[in-house]
Amino acid sequence: MQRVQLTKDLSFSRIIHGLWRLSDWNKSNEEVVKLIEDCLDAGITTFDHADIYGDYTCEKKFGNALALKPALRKQMEIVTKCGIKLVSHNRPGHSIKSYDTSKEHILSSVNQSLKNFQTNYIDVLLIHRPDPFMDPSQVAEAFTQLKQEGKVRYFGVSNFKRSQFKLLQSYLDFPLITNQIELSAYHLENFEDGTLDLCQEEKISPMAWSPLAGGEIFNSNDERAKHLRSKLELIAGDIGAQGIDEVLYAWLLIHPANIMPIVGSGNFERIESAIRALDLPLTRDQWFDILQVAMGREIS
Amino acid sequence: MQRVQLTKDLSFSRIIHGLWRLSDWNKSNEEVVKLIEDCLDAGITTFDHADIYGDYTCEKKFGNALALKPALRKQMEIVTKCGIKLVSHNRPGHSIKSYDTSKEHILSSVNQSLKNFQTNYIDVLLIHRPDPFMDPSQVAEAFTQLKQEGKVRYFGVSNFKRSQFKLLQSYLDFPLITNQIELSAYHLENFEDGTLDLCQEEKISPMAWSPLAGGEIFNSNDERAKHLRSKLELIAGDIGAQGIDEVLYAWLLIHPANIMPIVGSGNFERIESAIRALDLPLTRDQWFDILQVAMGREIS
Amino acid sequence: MQRVQLTKDLSFSRIIHGLWRLSDWNKSNEEVVKLIEDCLDAGITTFDHADIYGDYTCEKKFGNALALKPALRKQMEIVTKCGIKLVSHNRPGHSIKSYDTSKEHILSSVNQSLKNFQTNYIDVLLIHRPDPFMDPSQVAEAFTQLKQEGKVRYFGVSNFKRSQFKLLQSYLDFPLITNQIELSAYHLENFEDGTLDLCQEEKISPMAWSPLAGGEIFNSNDERAKHLRSKLELIAGDIGAQGIDEVLYAWLLIHPANIMPIVGSGNFERIESAIRALDLPLTRDQWFDILQVAMGREIS
Repeated sequence: MQRVQLTKDLSFSRIIHGLWRLSDWNKSNEEVVKLIEDCLDAGITTFDHADIYGDYTCEKKFGNALALKPALRKQMEIVTKCGIKLVSHNRPGHSIKSYDTSKEHILSSVNQSLKNFQTNYIDVLLIHRPDPFMDPSQVAEAFTQLKQEGKVRYFGVSNFKRSQFKLLQSYLDFPLITNQIELSAYHLENFEDGTLDLCQEEKISPMAWSPLAGGEIFNSNDERAKHLRSKLELIAGDIGAQGIDEVLYAWLLIHPANIMPIVGSGNFERIESAIRALDLPLTRDQWFDILQVAMGREIS
Repeated sequence: MQRVQLTKDLSFSRIIHGLWRLSDWNKSNEEVVKLIEDCLDAGITTFDHADIYGDYTCEKKFGNALALKPALRKQMEIVTKCGIKLVSHNRPGHSIKSYDTSKEHILSSVNQSLKNFQTNYIDVLLIHRPDPFMDPSQVAEAFTQLKQEGKVRYFGVSNFKRSQFKLLQSYLDFPLITNQIELSAYHLENFEDGTLDLCQEEKISPMAWSPLAGGEIFNSNDERAKHLRSKLELIAGDIGAQGIDEVLYAWLLIHPANIMPIVGSGNFERIESAIRALDLPLTRDQWFDILQVAMGREIS
Repeated sequence: MQRVQLTKDLSFSRIIHGLWRLSDWNKSNEEVVKLIEDCLDAGITTFDHADIYGDYTCEKKFGNALALKPALRKQMEIVTKCGIKLVSHNRPGHSIKSYDTSKEHILSSVNQSLKNFQTNYIDVLLIHRPDPFMDPSQVAEAFTQLKQEGKVRYFGVSNFKRSQFKLLQSYLDFPLITNQIELSAYHLENFEDGTLDLCQEEKISPMAWSPLAGGEIFNSNDERAKHLRSKLELIAGDIGAQGIDEVLYAWLLIHPANIMPIVGSGNFERIESAIRALDLPLTRDQWFDILQVAMGREIS
């Protein structure tokens, strides 16, 4: 498995496992351990979480599994997020969906995450969404304190546009090391609006959420989706892919921005299709062929 | 009254008085003096003008009042603007509405403003609108000369987007100290397009024009306006505000960007509602509640 | 003829001759020589090409003419571009329209251009379009090698937006010296989206393609085109222009960004209209008059 060096002493596996639906998979702790071990055996060492996943339950479920084999912790990188507050019976204090990037909320959210994971450090903490009420000096204070306390090693953001990234970065003494953004052949916004350009300019590797467009390409009767599906099937045949999901992963993996797709499946066979995509001989021409069908028009 | 430190030796009152409709108020010079003194007594020391307000008449009207009590000048900060040319019987040379940020126009506009105000210095001069025909080197020359002559202490802009701000700043040896932009719960553009992000990144406090959305929220039968009005009324009740205008001011005042709302009323009671807003216990949750009604959708 | 200093040892003529339709003009080599000499006599020394113009034929046609009078080479600046791959019987290896900014493609494209022009150096090489698959480190390697080999003196881009320009610039040890963009009174996008602002901020003079909007203003029955045409005709009369094309050139030429229009005609009389535009007394007011008709609304 390829690895992506994010800092001198931190690297991610090129394929990242995402656990936002962990609580839907109805797995026992033992089964979660099995999934983690299968990933680690395949070289997938980076696990993506957020405080809110599974209505605030996924981190804890993962931590309960880890508790069965605590030695696994050192073989993996844990990414988690904070900054969104959901209305939930698990958070009776929340009366409205909101963002909260106050120092107080970031600190307490991380403390809860540490408890959930039964670990004493997070590898990378991300601000989940750009907060229109952000006080960047508070975020900077929280990050600095968490770093000093050893609770979080590195920091990043998610879904940040150019101006938001530059704003937060300007308040920090250390670099943000990633931006987790939606990237797929079906959702081109971050390719088109300068967000991916900024990642390349800042020399940070983006994490890609919904690399398969949340299944929309597979099921939708939308004309654009149908055309894209046909094109992907054709190319899958040409390059020996076992399915269009592999082609979609490869489309991100061969891009020069060093994109790290997040695979959010509890079924290891589906994860393996992302791994196989690393070796698919997708060409630049095929990349543009897919792009143009996805855009619904020729390039200029 | 809170004050906002803009430079080492310049601060604004958090609430700013705007005089764009001064000539509509049909006040005598003595009544204008009274309004100024009421503001000063309440701690509002910053007065926002533009050469063109009242079809080029407001600066002079303000100056005529000041002439009755010249001692008031030192108790206040005068902000004015230049760069727009209106077709007006007061400017018979203008045959078309246009922008003009040439050195010549900036210098002559400031000289006229100084005469109108019967003062020998402007505290802050703003370029009123981004000029698509701007020669930034000419603006820089004009600003530098005005600074050296002591005619203008500091400089800023109004309605500038990111690229326009960065362009002008790159030609100046001193920082632009504010950007006066439209900000209200009803007009979210500058929250959404990176303009407010830039203010925070540059660590400049924005002045907010139309903080009450020019009254649209109060009168419009538009669905979005009606929903917002209902929400504001509800929250006004919850936090003990005397009207939704106070909630609208508070919505800007609690934002971390240190926004300075411009209150453009000749009725001191209306001005007092902005002052009361400074003490309203509006919460982050309520801020997001208002935001989401204003956007017409939930946050992501 | 005015000249624009782009670097210490490179200047362009203010009016640039564009050869994208050279192969359509059905000129003999001698006639091309005549056109070049007419341009040079008039002070137009800069000639704009691209590898793909005329389905990959224009560079060679120009080179064949140059071969008749090799002394002309030193009297001119040659600009050419690479990075687009067209499906063409002249490039049987291309099966799909795509962009290619790989090191390999840039190097081989320049080698082919040198052969076509029968010269041993290009004055300025541009990346033709922003490539969503760009690896900026490969572009940087290619540019650096071409500079060291003396094959290309300077580098620029074409049609790059802010984020794309900043991305590529951040990988280079030397400045990009121009951005060739679409600029005309009829196509205002680059005036409005920050692209021209960036050129001014970076202190680079943009080259303007389609300065006459590809003729759309002259022929279209679109309401906006008709209004603009009427306005241009009126102003042509007022300032003594012989046609609206002159006014359109003047509209670009008096802008402070030092815009260099590319005139793509094989008919020297048409080129002369651009030269005459340099002396037209178009005013700022007239500039705004045209702008507002072009926008279809008054400025704010």
